[in-house]
Amino acid sequence: MEDLCWLNPALVSSPPITVHSADPAAGTIRGEIDRVRTAGGDVQVALCTLDHLAETPLEEEVRAALPADGLGTEGFVVVRRGGQVVVAAEAGRGLLYGYFHVVRRGDRLEDTVELPAYPVRMLDHWDNLVPHPVMGAVERGYAGGSIFFHDGAVVEDLSRVREYARLLTSIGINAVSINNVNVRGPATRLLTDLLPDVARIAAVLREWGIATHLAVSYAAPIVLGDLDTSDPLDPRVVRWWAAASDRVYAEVPDLGGFVVKADSENQPGPFTYGRDHGDGANLLARALRPHGGTLYWRCFVYDCHQDWRDRSTDRARAAYDHFMPLDGQFDDNVVLQIKHGPLDFQVREAVSPLLGGLDRTRMALELQVTQEYTGHQRDLCYLGPWWREILDFDTTGAGGATVAQRADTIVAVSNVGDDSNWTGHKLAQANLHSYGRLAWNPGADPVELLHEWAAATFDVDAATRAQLVEIMADSWQVYEHYTAPLGVGFMVAPHGHYGPSVNGYEYSAWGTYHFADRDGVGVDRTVASGTGFTAQYPEPLAGRYEDLATCPDELLLFFHHVPYGHVLQSGRTVVQHIYDTHFQGYDEVVAKVEAWRAIADRFDPATRDNVSARFAGQVRNAREWRDQVNTYFFRMSGVPDAAGRTVYR
Amino acid sequence: MEDLCWLNPALVSSPPITVHSADPAAGTIRGEIDRVRTAGGDVQVALCTLDHLAETPLEEEVRAALPADGLGTEGFVVVRRGGQVVVAAEAGRGLLYGYFHVVRRGDRLEDTVELPAYPVRMLDHWDNLVPHPVMGAVERGYAGGSIFFHDGAVVEDLSRVREYARLLTSIGINAVSINNVNVRGPATRLLTDLLPDVARIAAVLREWGIATHLAVSYAAPIVLGDLDTSDPLDPRVVRWWAAASDRVYAEVPDLGGFVVKADSENQPGPFTYGRDHGDGANLLARALRPHGGTLYWRCFVYDCHQDWRDRSTDRARAAYDHFMPLDGQFDDNVVLQIKHGPLDFQVREAVSPLLGGLDRTRMALELQVTQEYTGHQRDLCYLGPWWREILDFDTTGAGGATVAQRADTIVAVSNVGDDSNWTGHKLAQANLHSYGRLAWNPGADPVELLHEWAAATFDVDAATRAQLVEIMADSWQVYEHYTAPLGVGFMVAPHGHYGPSVNGYEYSAWGTYHFADRDGVGVDRTVASGTGFTAQYPEPLAGRYEDLATCPDELLLFFHHVPYGHVLQSGRTVVQHIYDTHFQGYDEVVAKVEAWRAIADRFDPATRDNVSARFAGQVRNAREWRDQVNTYFFRMSGVPDAAGRTVYR
Repeated sequence: MEDLCWLNPALVSSPPITVHSADPAAGTIRGEIDRVRTAGGDVQVALCTLDHLAETPLEEEVRAALPADGLGTEGFVVVRRGGQVVVAAEAGRGLLYGYFHVVRRGDRLEDTVELPAYPVRMLDHWDNLVPHPVMGAVERGYAGGSIFFHDGAVVEDLSRVREYARLLTSIGINAVSINNVNVRGPATRLLTDLLPDVARIAAVLREWGIATHLAVSYAAPIVLGDLDTSDPLDPRVVRWWAAASDRVYAEVPDLGGFVVKADSENQPGPFTYGRDHGDGANLLARALRPHGGTLYWRCFVYDCHQDWRDRSTDRARAAYDHFMPLDGQFDDNVVLQIKHGPLDFQVREAVSPLLGGLDRTRMALELQVTQEYTGHQRDLCYLGPWWREILDFDTTGAGGATVAQRADTIVAVSNVGDDSNWTGHKLAQANLHSYGRLAWNPGADPVELLHEWAAATFDVDAATRAQLVEIMADSWQVYEHYTAPLGVGFMVAPHGHYGPSVNGYEYSAWGTYHFADRDGVGVDRTVASGTGFTAQYPEPLAGRYEDLATCPDELLLFFHHVPYGHVLQSGRTVVQHIYDTHFQGYDEVVAKVEAWRAIADRFDPATRDNVSARFAGQVRNAREWRDQVNTYFFRMSGVPDAAGRTVYR
Repeated sequence: MEDLCWLNPALVSSPPITVHSADPAAGTIRGEIDRVRTAGGDVQVALCTLDHLAETPLEEEVRAALPADGLGTEGFVVVRRGGQVVVAAEAGRGLLYGYFHVVRRGDRLEDTVELPAYPVRMLDHWDNLVPHPVMGAVERGYAGGSIFFHDGAVVEDLSRVREYARLLTSIGINAVSINNVNVRGPATRLLTDLLPDVARIAAVLREWGIATHLAVSYAAPIVLGDLDTSDPLDPRVVRWWAAASDRVYAEVPDLGGFVVKADSENQPGPFTYGRDHGDGANLLARALRPHGGTLYWRCFVYDCHQDWRDRSTDRARAAYDHFMPLDGQFDDNVVLQIKHGPLDFQVREAVSPLLGGLDRTRMALELQVTQEYTGHQRDLCYLGPWWREILDFDTTGAGGATVAQRADTIVAVSNVGDDSNWTGHKLAQANLHSYGRLAWNPGADPVELLHEWAAATFDVDAATRAQLVEIMADSWQVYEHYTAPLGVGFMVAPHGHYGPSVNGYEYSAWGTYHFADRDGVGVDRTVASGTGFTAQYPEPLAGRYEDLATCPDELLLFFHHVPYGHVLQSGRTVVQHIYDTHFQGYDEVVAKVEAWRAIADRFDPATRDNVSARFAGQVRNAREWRDQVNTYFFRMSGVPDAAGRTVYR
């Protein structure tokens, strides 16, 4: 594999570091220090746990800087007095994060107190134990095979996993679910005879302060052949899960818990037995409780056998409709895991109303680092700004709590595979970096995070780095420009989800339609004339979406079906907006490629070649999107482009 | 597997048979007779080669009946005088066909002389040596795995192949190409270390008078690692193929020849070296010549990386444009293998102008028994009438030669797999039966052939059989009704080709578009304003297609782009025709299911369940087609159905 890029301390001007701690994590840090090319110089850094503070020159200053509520197990404090720096933490995990803070900052260290915004900052791997005939080794993975599994077994050599753990810790991730939430066949055996292998992985992740989680099948008692039911109220099922949990914790005492996709896209679940998701989730949560484990229960529950003829069913409503009535019924070690949007990780969609709705239930915000709908790590699409927008989203529309404030946990689907550069597209590393950093601090600036990642990753001058950051910073908006317009979503090639197919899902069973006809386009989700989805939001947000006059342009077709001549708040008609943004998006990609060409040779050859090749593909893809979308709507509407550019017949 | 159905002599009232011949085939026939439940009775049949005629009671009558030009190796004569019947042939293969004639006719034998219309009547298997990750064991196969290959090797136990050979002989097929024309990786080794396995298959097929053929890769000299070129004018390449051919014939002295798909859908070919298909085909033909082999060179050559924006390129033109200039340049052991239509085995398309064009080149008409675009053997679609229409097609439009008269050979893609009933859908057997019988006699009546197949297959009374035949007879037209309208073709789900996707290929690289917009639909292939394809036909045919007023309705959108309000010769508008036929097609399927339900219980349980289940699926499929096509054109045109039926928005 390539060098570990943005966690590569060798690139960073790190001061001399000493470690003062008896915590086992200190050993890990000492091992790390040997990999650092210390710059020497005026600054001396001491990392120490509070019980060793007397060994440092700034004991009193550190004590004065400690927050009243303490640092917890992960926080750390930095105090600098001239050339003396002390980074102190209550526990070794805090020191680990403090260490990487030092590595990132080098001698630019300043006084600070760092506490993570969420106690759990998690990545879900959709890695298959056995490669799926269609989905491959990693479902929605675009960076090679799995780093955990190969040929139906856990890999023997875990050195890649060890490097990954270091990488994750360097960006603040402390929880990983190692296997696909679509738990198929042999993967169920991670609960049984494969447990020693799970324990091997957990041991490696533990060194870096990362808790291992398992995705489990709701039907495991049946799949493993022990019972003929998974009815959550059947005492045999309760006993089965208790025993399974005991077995797992005997091997991995600090397992974080289970992740479950139930009654979702043909996965089994409690609906089979006429039970609700409170019954289902609490069943597993109670099996985990004696061991301190948490149950992550996904809310991606909708009818994936929808009839496209049926305009009354709205997939966007599903999660709220299913879970809001259950608010307050979940045990306190249940976390409902909620995708950021009501559909499925689109480049633009509304924020899930469930995130603003649940009051008496713990919630995880689920993001997607892997670029399923955002270019497969073949197209550049830096998602930091999109996630920040979601995190900052005011769930009431009137200065209420933001999503970041309401969520208890942040989870995302990993974009990592066994490709030498981890993420297929070298620049897609930045998405993983920013995800981790935003999960630590949701108020971080996505562009600053790009600078941070680039500085740690590339051995280039500051001007070049700034140019790279400029290329990347708005790439999500560019991706939006050349793909599905105005929040309508999808229009992607069926199954694969890369490249355009305007009608690809229009007559499918997946509930994702745009309803374009010769007169107009969009999904009417209003209360007045549509599916009533807008009512899932509180006022004044609900009214803002309901009213054509106040609905934000970028979500117009998500909420409304309008004629092509409808005039947006931008002053353009819908169809002209489609033409304009698609020409613009393509031109923007071309400009990015030009900008990249000017600096490409300053990067290492692997980066230069990887990024150049991906950009060449992105130009082709953007051109296909531009032309297919434009032609589709020209054929539909008959309206020519006002600027007279080429729209193919 | 199931009983061998329509070749099952046990069902047939066969008279007592004796065999008089020293030909090896006589042994095969004697073995067959042991499987026959002879009815006894008044008729006695003697099968004999002419050199044993003296052993029969009707020597003189038979000699008088012999045609002046003789019977050739496959013909036979039947002479009946009261209870005495003699079936005579020059050679054992003629006796084999005569034997199955007796089995089919039972005691209804009458005087006849039977000579096959074509010396070669062939089936091409698209069977993969190694299952393809997407295409599976049999490319475009819908009846299970391959009967020849399993897990990358020729099957050890050839008993299924033996039964298949018997089946083919019973319907007159005498040539089989055993492997996929897309020759991938290990399949190239059928020319080398797998030759002994080819010889094993050939030995089994030979018993039944069937010549084995191999599909070979044009790049075999490179793929097998011997050369770095396949340039047909390079002496090393010439020598390589001569040696390869020698090697093959040393193992299989009566191999029929090679089948080649070159420069077609990413397969290698002479274009790589700037050579034409005359150079390419003659290269292989000359390697086969010393051994008496024939080269089947497919004409399915077109640009499969077409840009949908480019309206000047027309895939329909490709075969004619490529091959007509080469007419007369092919060696006489080259047969150009030409798909019946200029696109690709659609339920309705024009007949390939190449079939009417080539004058100095041997031609094979290529049909498709496997139901790639006609329902995957999940939907009932009896293709006999379609093939008969193609065979009868007047290539000049003014009483000129028909396709049947112009073709030298008939080839079709097999619909057989290792499913217990051979063809997945039990009733799809009839397609194989009729194909074989039409290749023997292109003037046979497709409905009569259905009766013949049903009589030999099902142990039911004549009235039931007649009802079954009625259900099946027009199923191709019904399939046309509910799928792509007016000859426009495609509109199928990409890749798989089952089920509707009106826009599925509209923006693809495959050259198969319908160009529907808010005003109209269809492909302008006229000389006046379109791609000029019509000029590939001779007059008066060309003019008939060129002129909107004379173009047959069923091909209107194949040749013309017209407004939705265009009035067909039927008096209906195009859009109303679309609505009408799609409602009709669905209703017809429902009626067939009703008709089947009334007789289903009279059939054996396996047939009853198989056909009933497939019909249930066909109703769903026809409904999807009906509604998706209708809705698509309603959304496009805005024209409501004149009859007020439900067209979803």
